[in-house]
Amino acid sequence: MNRIHTYLLRVEFGDCDPAQIVWFPNYFRWADAASRHFFIQCGLPSWKTTEAERGIIGTPLVDTHARFKRPASYGDQLTIDSFVPEWRRTSFVMRHTVRRGDETLCEITEVRVFARRKGDGSDPHAIEAVPVPEDWRALCE
Amino acid sequence: MNRIHTYLLRVEFGDCDPAQIVWFPNYFRWADAASRHFFIQCGLPSWKTTEAERGIIGTPLVDTHARFKRPASYGDQLTIDSFVPEWRRTSFVMRHTVRRGDETLCEITEVRVFARRKGDGSDPHAIEAVPVPEDWRALCE
Amino acid sequence: MNRIHTYLLRVEFGDCDPAQIVWFPNYFRWADAASRHFFIQCGLPSWKTTEAERGIIGTPLVDTHARFKRPASYGDQLTIDSFVPEWRRTSFVMRHTVRRGDETLCEITEVRVFARRKGDGSDPHAIEAVPVPEDWRALCE
Amino acid sequence: MNRIHTYLLRVEFGDCDPAQIVWFPNYFRWADAASRHFFIQCGLPSWKTTEAERGIIGTPLVDTHARFKRPASYGDQLTIDSFVPEWRRTSFVMRHTVRRGDETLCEITEVRVFARRKGDGSDPHAIEAVPVPEDWRALCE
Repeated sequence: MNRIHTYLLRVEFGDCDPAQIVWFPNYFRWADAASRHFFIQCGLPSWKTTEAERGIIGTPLVDTHARFKRPASYGDQLTIDSFVPEWRRTSFVMRHTVRRGDETLCEITEVRVFARRKGDGSDPHAIEAVPVPEDWRALCE
Repeated sequence: MNRIHTYLLRVEFGDCDPAQIVWFPNYFRWADAASRHFFIQCGLPSWKTTEAERGIIGTPLVDTHARFKRPASYGDQLTIDSFVPEWRRTSFVMRHTVRRGDETLCEITEVRVFARRKGDGSDPHAIEAVPVPEDWRALCE
Repeated sequence: MNRIHTYLLRVEFGDCDPAQIVWFPNYFRWADAASRHFFIQCGLPSWKTTEAERGIIGTPLVDTHARFKRPASYGDQLTIDSFVPEWRRTSFVMRHTVRRGDETLCEITEVRVFARRKGDGSDPHAIEAVPVPEDWRALCE
Repeated sequence: MNRIHTYLLRVEFGDCDPAQIVWFPNYFRWADAASRHFFIQCGLPSWKTTEAERGIIGTPLVDTHARFKRPASYGDQLTIDSFVPEWRRTSFVMRHTVRRGDETLCEITEVRVFARRKGDGSDPHAIEAVPVPEDWRALCE
């Protein structure tokens, strides 16, 4: 059994493109928000707190795959069900299913890592994965 | 041999997130622009013209896969090399490689279709794939 | 007395910039959504319906003024109170107050018009203001 | 005489809304980029350097006013001319004129400050204006 968090959203006019349907990068925007809310819901602190306490700045993506099945448009209310089907040593898989009522519009699978800034300072933006914290994993299972 | 189009872009402050690196949905924004520029470069008309002349409104995504290898930040100048490695009957594969100088930052593979609005009018936003137009494919090879 | 509609939103990680605060163009995104919800709440049909029935495609902005007082960051829940302080013949003023609890973060004043596509077809994107429909104004007061 | 910097941009499909014209928050996105490029062009260091050396994290907006005169659509190439018409003690006015060829599409006036994080730490996102650095002002005039 996996914990699932459901994220609710409204599609707005500005989320849609000249074909009048959701412009696809917005699905990744929403999946990113759903991912953060998943962790908040599981009881993890804000990334601001985790950066201060453990140096962990968030969960950057290393890989994502999305399948788009049906378009949505403004006025639609969507739900995103998010869960973690697989935990690895230094990464995890997160899956998001975007629905409008009973219809599945989009499925997104992400591989993310918990990351901290690289210590040597040679590149201020270099980040590196850390092992998945055991206590956090326990909260999310 | 495939035609390759190179798209140039500057990473702006507002493209970056609180971790000070490019927020990943922007890579899809840029890939979408690179895809449109690829077709313009190959000699296809604007989607406005194609909609008027053939009912084709653009090339919506049905599937995309991205691998993120290194982060970028504002001030970076990036290039995206785009080409079509595979043409199918009603879809095609487009590949984008995002680079900063010699470094590959991100690789995106898309499956897209040429689409028109569905004729029956039951759902104003329903769209459907059309066979890849032969003359356009010839322009892009 | 003016009708006021309240729009609720959550600030997400991706709404924030490298200074870790909301990147200001997002306030305009939210104000645009709040504006559309105001009209829906007042009982106006969707812009899709109004385009089909009256040729009116929405309420494009002609002028906007924003004052930014305090920053917000991700995790914040904001409210936007929107109302129409002034109706003119072919335009109207809309005012949005963005708050976090009791604190006012941002005030946005917009001048918008109800618009339709310009008939002569010389420029497919040309739009023009129409007189404010009396029945819609009555719904919003 | 004021220094003027010209920023070039292409309007992309995803910058446009269901009315097929540029969705207005994008003008603020572009103005923000044009503002940063103005300072880079004048010889100011990157905000990353200024934060490390002087604690100055950028130039947040305190006020902006925009007039939208003509719409643009994808495929358009636009220019933004930016300059500083007025320097004040702790703020400055920046003006952006967005053009397509000879036509002015949009005029944006901003009041910005050079900002640093507030020292007392009571609110990690609190920022405050600093006096306009004399050496930077000299570079920009």
